[in-house]
Amino acid sequence: MISLSIGDPTHYKNMLPPIEAEEAVTEAVQKPTSHGYVPSFGLEAARQAVAELWTKPNCQLKFDDIILTSGCSHALEMCINCLANPGDNILLPRPGFSLYVTLCKSLNIETRFYDLIPDKCWEVDLDHLQSMINEKTKAILINNPSNPCGAVYGKEHLCSIIDLCEKNCLPIIADEIYADMFELALLFVFLDAIKPGLLDLSSRILGPNSIIQAALPYILTQTPQSYFDEIITQIQMNAQFCYETLSSVPGLKPIMPSGAMYMLIGIDVTAFRDIESDTDLFKKLIDEESLSCLPASVFGISNYIRLVLTAPFEKTQEACMRIVEFCERHTNTI
Amino acid sequence: MISLSIGDPTHYKNMLPPIEAEEAVTEAVQKPTSHGYVPSFGLEAARQAVAELWTKPNCQLKFDDIILTSGCSHALEMCINCLANPGDNILLPRPGFSLYVTLCKSLNIETRFYDLIPDKCWEVDLDHLQSMINEKTKAILINNPSNPCGAVYGKEHLCSIIDLCEKNCLPIIADEIYADMFELALLFVFLDAIKPGLLDLSSRILGPNSIIQAALPYILTQTPQSYFDEIITQIQMNAQFCYETLSSVPGLKPIMPSGAMYMLIGIDVTAFRDIESDTDLFKKLIDEESLSCLPASVFGISNYIRLVLTAPFEKTQEACMRIVEFCERHTNTI
Repeated sequence: MISLSIGDPTHYKNMLPPIEAEEAVTEAVQKPTSHGYVPSFGLEAARQAVAELWTKPNCQLKFDDIILTSGCSHALEMCINCLANPGDNILLPRPGFSLYVTLCKSLNIETRFYDLIPDKCWEVDLDHLQSMINEKTKAILINNPSNPCGAVYGKEHLCSIIDLCEKNCLPIIADEIYADMFELALLFVFLDAIKPGLLDLSSRILGPNSIIQAALPYILTQTPQSYFDEIITQIQMNAQFCYETLSSVPGLKPIMPSGAMYMLIGIDVTAFRDIESDTDLFKKLIDEESLSCLPASVFGISNYIRLVLTAPFEKTQEACMRIVEFCERHTNTI
Repeated sequence: MISLSIGDPTHYKNMLPPIEAEEAVTEAVQKPTSHGYVPSFGLEAARQAVAELWTKPNCQLKFDDIILTSGCSHALEMCINCLANPGDNILLPRPGFSLYVTLCKSLNIETRFYDLIPDKCWEVDLDHLQSMINEKTKAILINNPSNPCGAVYGKEHLCSIIDLCEKNCLPIIADEIYADMFELALLFVFLDAIKPGLLDLSSRILGPNSIIQAALPYILTQTPQSYFDEIITQIQMNAQFCYETLSSVPGLKPIMPSGAMYMLIGIDVTAFRDIESDTDLFKKLIDEESLSCLPASVFGISNYIRLVLTAPFEKTQEACMRIVEFCERHTNTI
């Protein structure tokens, strides 16, 4: 089985953490100061390291602008919890990461979806976004670079999104978890008004592991750029190969990503004899080709599949070949 | 300043993690398999290690009976979230750990309190507990060994609690976080009925750190009993010294703990010239003696203070001496 379904870059052991992270954790675990309870919103030194990493010429950050959480999922949960009450709604991208819906549902917050436009590199459909806002809307979630699309928005498009949100007096929840892989324009919002709420919410459960927090300054300052460059090169090679190979397959329409580690591939089911939907394709690829990738219906749209681009190049090549053969076998043309 | 206020045993660096934990984490961070996303409910090997640790002759546990969480706070949040809806109530011990209220409030769940009886080693007042149950009660939280009381319930008392809960068809949330410090009777409940709910809730945010999970089997099997024995000896020496020294002070009534790492000391404010309450005593101890301990009003009762028993013996001795001198200075008798 080749698995291109789970967005875990460590799955095939070709993208492991940098040696500097190992060194940092090994050193931290031996230090008496790394143990015990740290503030639920994070250790000052770790918050300082994050603030320094993200300080830009026009955006000076201090340690107390930073709240550390147990993964991006926890950060999202806190933001959604802080901004909306049961019965309110939050606007989510479609296609979009399925966790957003899980988090909103568990908080009894309604989800409404705004469309992304595949033919414009998955930019936000601003008219549709505007039409989805009502009096119960409390925030707009923007995911950039995006999962599952791999889209990266330009500065101009981001400014249009901000203008729309300002006009409607709505805050943005910016999920920019893949941002540090690239030099790119960011929304990067922080609302001082909700800081007390976020600090309160952070005190409900233990913050991130104290040893990793102690190791964070070393990891963030000592990991060389070459580590990131190498990973991005691997992802780009995979993206390029998938795009070129699958573009020529009748019935498939891959959309070249610019960031994150995913590619969506459109499926024209009429081009195939016996493929009913993305879910059907997903099942048949597993059964016939031992290849696992996700049907985009789990992200809220139909007739796309998502490939993860972090597998070793040979695995990715092999996966593409299996897709090509599969499509040839199932084609509608004689 | 001597701090006996925060229940963090690593504060004075006299109770650090065992060397086996350091070894385990150092080894785990170097293994490729320790990185990446693990299931939000925990790595199978880590869950298996926990299951083996807690399997008892009359209680066989399997790995899938175990859900790992980001600290006990996260486990409590999930249990409360799973068992009660907004508007329902949960019964909490008084005095009790303040986080219970924080968690319930953030979920819009009402909190009702049942009394613990200081003169019966903080046993549950069963009549009072019964009287607090109403049609909106969804669970009873039992904390044993308890924070802030340091009480440990005997088997007979636990059976009485279970009988009462059975009679009322109410589940128990058993916060037994200090249980592995001692050989003692446990409630140790697991409701198969709520397992699917807990698994669902665990998927909202990232589970505990994958490196620590990878290290857990080694930590749980290789840490020698002598590590725990030494810590318990330190706590017991501190408890004994505090109890003996403060018992003879007019106006103070320490209650000897049997577990956890805390001691509550009753205060008869009429024995003092100018102490109005536990909070007043807390403030004056900081101002006049540079000694910090918690007023029990943060745990829901008045006229007690809580001492943490994990400081080095000399610090604990010095703290007691300062309390003795303070009380002599403020006594009501001439």
